[in-house]
Amino acid sequence: MSAIKRHESSPILSDAVEHGGLVYLAGQVPEDLSQDIRGQTREVLSAIDALLEKAGSHKSRILSVNIWLADIRQREEMNEVWKAWADPAHLPARATVEAKLGHPRMLVEIMLVAAKNT
Amino acid sequence: MSAIKRHESSPILSDAVEHGGLVYLAGQVPEDLSQDIRGQTREVLSAIDALLEKAGSHKSRILSVNIWLADIRQREEMNEVWKAWADPAHLPARATVEAKLGHPRMLVEIMLVAAKNT
Amino acid sequence: MSAIKRHESSPILSDAVEHGGLVYLAGQVPEDLSQDIRGQTREVLSAIDALLEKAGSHKSRILSVNIWLADIRQREEMNEVWKAWADPAHLPARATVEAKLGHPRMLVEIMLVAAKNT
Repeated sequence: MSAIKRHESSPILSDAVEHGGLVYLAGQVPEDLSQDIRGQTREVLSAIDALLEKAGSHKSRILSVNIWLADIRQREEMNEVWKAWADPAHLPARATVEAKLGHPRMLVEIMLVAAKNT
Repeated sequence: MSAIKRHESSPILSDAVEHGGLVYLAGQVPEDLSQDIRGQTREVLSAIDALLEKAGSHKSRILSVNIWLADIRQREEMNEVWKAWADPAHLPARATVEAKLGHPRMLVEIMLVAAKNT
Repeated sequence: MSAIKRHESSPILSDAVEHGGLVYLAGQVPEDLSQDIRGQTREVLSAIDALLEKAGSHKSRILSVNIWLADIRQREEMNEVWKAWADPAHLPARATVEAKLGHPRMLVEIMLVAAKNT
């Protein structure tokens, strides 16, 4: 069977799953919920950088991204942080919609699939 | 062209689609909407088991999962059923957010991509 | 490294990303927000046709689709347009949930992954 490699497994999910040249990340959420949308987005994107590196990928290799915002009106603020982080020559497909997240003060969750560096 | 195999097609969608070593499942929802979140989650996970078997995969080969809950506060109850079902050595990436679903009494919908047993 | 080809990149995302025999589309939304759900769905599906052609795919090769509706009660109207557009012999996996979208009059957003014509 084709190999599946899982990283950072909790009792319910794995934060990164490698298979067939791709890496699937679990929805990443901030830990410090006292932050505003900019701070929460920065924390989530840092966690994504770390997970992608662990799984042999990189933000320039992201294919598709789902972003959920607790308040869609904060999209522009999220996008400012996103633009400062993303590789402008290698931008992924992306969809951003509003959804209530796992905690009332959680403002952003980001899930993605990326190609490995191979 | 690379082969695509579709299972359980309704007039609008296919419940499972095989391509390139992967299986994509449509969002699975419960039929018996009189059940609570635990019962509805159990029914959905059983439907997923059956679809994965039909498409030549298995819950231990799931890569990434999207879960929508009509009420995010029911996440812990859903997770209890999930943990009893999931293969603890082979956990997928996963994201869970709140969304209104196709019927007011529909409490959970689950969509996923899995690797085939090959 | 495996090649990634990106189409129609804006400052924040690419509308289509090709990798490994697949095409990932960004969430497509209507531009003319004066339209009702039927008109908005038609506009989005036309944009999808054009993007799939540009990226070497076709609606008959779609594997999995996410649809967000600003009002889930408009699902049947969206589905009428969907059924008139979709290839009934080649239906994808699909999930449809409610979510607030990027503008108050935006009624539908559609994101998908398709196999290339190869």
